[in-house]
Amino acid sequence: MSAPPTTTLGPGSDLSQVFELAQQLRVDSVRASTAAGSGHPTSSLSAADLMAVLMTRHLRYDWEAPDDPAGDHLIFSKGHASPLLYAMFKAAGVIGDDELMTTYRRFGHRLQGHPTPELPWVDLATGSLGQGVAYGVGIALAVRDLEKQPSRVWVLCGDSETAEGSVWEALDKAGHHRLANFTALIDVNRLGQSGPTELEWDTEAYARRVEAFGCRAIVVDGHDLAAIDLALTTAADQREPTVVVARTVKGRGVAEVADKEGWHGKPLPEDLAERAVAELGGVRDLRVRGPRPAAAAPATAARAGAVELPRFEVGDKVATRVAFGGALAALGARPEVVALDAEVGNSTHAEEFGKAYPDRYFQTYIAEQQMIADAVGMAVRGFRPYATTFAAFLTRAHDFIRMAAVSRITMALCGTHSGVEIGADGPSQMGLEDLAMMRAVLGSTVLYPGDATSAAALTAAMADLDGISYLRTTRGAYPVLYSADETFPVGGSKTLRHGADDQVTLVGAGVTLHECLAAADELAAEGVRARVVDLYSVKPVDTDTLARAAADTGALVVVEDHHPEGGVGEAVLSALAMGDSHPAFAHLAVTELPGSGTTAELLDACGISRTHIARAARALVRR
Amino acid sequence: MSAPPTTTLGPGSDLSQVFELAQQLRVDSVRASTAAGSGHPTSSLSAADLMAVLMTRHLRYDWEAPDDPAGDHLIFSKGHASPLLYAMFKAAGVIGDDELMTTYRRFGHRLQGHPTPELPWVDLATGSLGQGVAYGVGIALAVRDLEKQPSRVWVLCGDSETAEGSVWEALDKAGHHRLANFTALIDVNRLGQSGPTELEWDTEAYARRVEAFGCRAIVVDGHDLAAIDLALTTAADQREPTVVVARTVKGRGVAEVADKEGWHGKPLPEDLAERAVAELGGVRDLRVRGPRPAAAAPATAARAGAVELPRFEVGDKVATRVAFGGALAALGARPEVVALDAEVGNSTHAEEFGKAYPDRYFQTYIAEQQMIADAVGMAVRGFRPYATTFAAFLTRAHDFIRMAAVSRITMALCGTHSGVEIGADGPSQMGLEDLAMMRAVLGSTVLYPGDATSAAALTAAMADLDGISYLRTTRGAYPVLYSADETFPVGGSKTLRHGADDQVTLVGAGVTLHECLAAADELAAEGVRARVVDLYSVKPVDTDTLARAAADTGALVVVEDHHPEGGVGEAVLSALAMGDSHPAFAHLAVTELPGSGTTAELLDACGISRTHIARAARALVRR
Repeated sequence: MSAPPTTTLGPGSDLSQVFELAQQLRVDSVRASTAAGSGHPTSSLSAADLMAVLMTRHLRYDWEAPDDPAGDHLIFSKGHASPLLYAMFKAAGVIGDDELMTTYRRFGHRLQGHPTPELPWVDLATGSLGQGVAYGVGIALAVRDLEKQPSRVWVLCGDSETAEGSVWEALDKAGHHRLANFTALIDVNRLGQSGPTELEWDTEAYARRVEAFGCRAIVVDGHDLAAIDLALTTAADQREPTVVVARTVKGRGVAEVADKEGWHGKPLPEDLAERAVAELGGVRDLRVRGPRPAAAAPATAARAGAVELPRFEVGDKVATRVAFGGALAALGARPEVVALDAEVGNSTHAEEFGKAYPDRYFQTYIAEQQMIADAVGMAVRGFRPYATTFAAFLTRAHDFIRMAAVSRITMALCGTHSGVEIGADGPSQMGLEDLAMMRAVLGSTVLYPGDATSAAALTAAMADLDGISYLRTTRGAYPVLYSADETFPVGGSKTLRHGADDQVTLVGAGVTLHECLAAADELAAEGVRARVVDLYSVKPVDTDTLARAAADTGALVVVEDHHPEGGVGEAVLSALAMGDSHPAFAHLAVTELPGSGTTAELLDACGISRTHIARAARALVRR
Repeated sequence: MSAPPTTTLGPGSDLSQVFELAQQLRVDSVRASTAAGSGHPTSSLSAADLMAVLMTRHLRYDWEAPDDPAGDHLIFSKGHASPLLYAMFKAAGVIGDDELMTTYRRFGHRLQGHPTPELPWVDLATGSLGQGVAYGVGIALAVRDLEKQPSRVWVLCGDSETAEGSVWEALDKAGHHRLANFTALIDVNRLGQSGPTELEWDTEAYARRVEAFGCRAIVVDGHDLAAIDLALTTAADQREPTVVVARTVKGRGVAEVADKEGWHGKPLPEDLAERAVAELGGVRDLRVRGPRPAAAAPATAARAGAVELPRFEVGDKVATRVAFGGALAALGARPEVVALDAEVGNSTHAEEFGKAYPDRYFQTYIAEQQMIADAVGMAVRGFRPYATTFAAFLTRAHDFIRMAAVSRITMALCGTHSGVEIGADGPSQMGLEDLAMMRAVLGSTVLYPGDATSAAALTAAMADLDGISYLRTTRGAYPVLYSADETFPVGGSKTLRHGADDQVTLVGAGVTLHECLAAADELAAEGVRARVVDLYSVKPVDTDTLARAAADTGALVVVEDHHPEGGVGEAVLSALAMGDSHPAFAHLAVTELPGSGTTAELLDACGISRTHIARAARALVRR
């Protein structure tokens, strides 16, 4: 196949040229996926006209300067249509045909099955459906409200994925915030993975939903280039958040697969691919220079002030969530720090930040998925988000957190009201799975302070960590253990009780640290010498101190207000597993369904109170 | 306070009596929460009129026979309004004033802060907002399509929680399935926890959304008893799924708190509570006998057939997901087994069940939260649901799974396409966190078969397990290891290579089991004798076999296609921690972000291939 000489399209190119580009995108989608032996060509074919018009006439983007702060963003929420996206990259001239044809979906290469930010033109990993619209809302919010840049956000979304509630959670926010710089394009190609979608081609039903959620809906024939162009021109008037509902045909342009079931996620066999390329008019080598970004707004001159963390008196009773809120407000002196709340800011104390820096405080209401998506979007724009809710309710956003790790996002999460410690509200509100969830996030840092001083210090430390960091805080007020001049390195621990001839080590974090201290007192009264370690850094964990404690005392009691799987206890075991010291071990954790009660009643009933710790320690010492 | 003599209200009682009941529910909500010192009285006051009309005239329910299959269901999605629910229980005569006043939110008692099924009149735990509507849809579906019973479902939902996408994911399904036996009541009291809600009193906006999602919307003044009665009468015509959008006042009836911010989740202080009770007309002791359930449909006579599991030839290459699908279809011989898919049934092979038993196969499209909610609803009605999607996408439903455990639901989940093994699709599709998530679920069982025979047997075993069980399957085809007469007890393992003088034990599960076998071959060629354990049961785990292997060989290599936290490796460490054998230990897991590639390339790049296993084993043996 020989390519004709290169022609470059621009905003002034007529629609017949744009049609040729759309056909090129189709051809390259077919070729790349057939060459790879896997991929989603038919899902690419349906959206090719939308993307050809967008990239030629509307997407204000400098492909050589993807970090231009005024450039538009394009998010492929339907990440499986990666052949189309990568064909666009080729048309933009930033990848060559060779890379497309020989590396797509191959090991060690950047043109992965679903897009990731390993590619400079990709802001975020997609592929878990129903997330792109939510991220787009977060980026649009950051661009408009934090930066006042002219960037706009375009999201290409599949029709199947609108079954995810997260799409509507996001459009609700697009409408609520009147995000006029946000446009989603729904590629209504009628066919999902295993059959017709729920709404098939009922574009009016989509439009009604979009409008009910406060966005402007524009229904178009997604293969009518003039109609698409008009819709995108309207969307770009920046009067309202807009959703273009485009009726399309899956497999458009290739008669043998167009609108046929059974072709989702399947490359065309080589012979069919050849016929398809011929039907589509053969290989082309058109290039695109679309509109350039508008002039960027001058960088805001906000300078970082000094971060003055709150100070606490040793012995005073202060909840770690309160210390978190105070430290977060103090961190507001750094202009890149933003905070997000899911309508519990008065419980989590995140609202302290909102009082001090209302312009950088975002209320997502009870919508944890969108809160995380907003944080991710803001991180994409270079901010340092802190997103906070009850630890239990972060589980609602697990898939978003997981995908943020794939996107290599840096953000800080705080989960308050962890464990049975919360008392009367009962098990629905008790985060007892959050440590397992957050430890298993790729590259995460997991912190669990036991007092206000360490909570404030670790809250501040998170502003300089890479990746996803998590702070677990506690509802109740407990004595401040550390003076303000103590330091709390990530990966460290504090040994609070220590003697030359300790017989057992008690390892706690958060509320259980205080139970360990009380148990040590009880044991001391009996003549049993217990070391006490504050394991405030759960990941990374202080292997050296734990190994020394294991070697010195030969007996470890680890106690946590969490289910036994995946939390503090297993972090300790993993730390010790490769070493030479194998202490006698007791692991106290919450193994039964708790109910309501006071904190003391619940800690005791769940076997993680001072009494149980002392009992376990005694058993180990006397073994 | 002396109570007047008991009067019993029924469907024929006039609205002035219903008003007295509503006031009683308010009075008791105030009294109970003030006595407890915590709780949400103002959120109860707003919905008291709705509930008084519902329980007197519309809820067809036998309070003495809550398991009557024809009875209606009432779900308090706004679980924090538990004072109102418990006040209703008192009015129904099933709890006494003493229990309400002295045990609410107290340790060891059933009137917990948020309702749980420990109470016979509560189907499901609520308290994580945005879930009740979804569960209601699941129950309504089971009642109508599986049982053909006359039961109806009523869900009381808060206005704040409609910010959760899951509510719209659910209403979409109510509309899609035309669930005419489903009614939600949104208590639009305008105030959330920390301030006004997003839509405040814009009841028309709620109605537009409801209608756009295919349900009938009825807007009412939620304190106009006649209007409520008319709305519920309309809803009960069972023509359409209905959402009653009720404009209410938070704190209604108590002037000092009505429509005031700052009163969410706060009991009234004692003096204010006294004034409130007086303002509400004092303590009453009205009783309610509402409508009785309709006659139950005769129990379906479906008898269990014989479950003939698929059989596989040792050595044939079969994917465990294929074996799962075949076994699931075979389990359809048991009439209580139902299967749910999130539009990937042709990948997960759940569709095999759908082909055999279309009436018990439910397509939830790409809506994992609703898939789990449907499963939970069906479990409430006594069915045995199997819900399946990619392991990665189960994280989307983490909060629903967590709450299902609080509800003590029995259901089987299957996550397919686990780990980097999937290859070219890339990290967004690779479940690498699912074992951590599922192990930390209270009371869960976690299974991870390495071949088709064990996958089929464990799929069948799940139909007899209590609680939430999870089967992790693999995309690719691997040799069948076991003949059909082998048994696979939950909590067991298989030792596939074993000798008197083994020097090291290789522990694998799923795809890594095959890598362990290959590594053992490689080691054997070098004269290193390796034991190989198939740890198909990750929770509970076979502590005895692991301890014996540790004692016999003194060295363990655990390898898993999962992040290192919370998975197979830590399950093994926890199993060995309390014992006396402390083997040298190597843990191979996925610690870096994978990309696309072939299975072999990715296993190797991630350090979990046969080569890495053999290398780790050599290092341990030669230490």
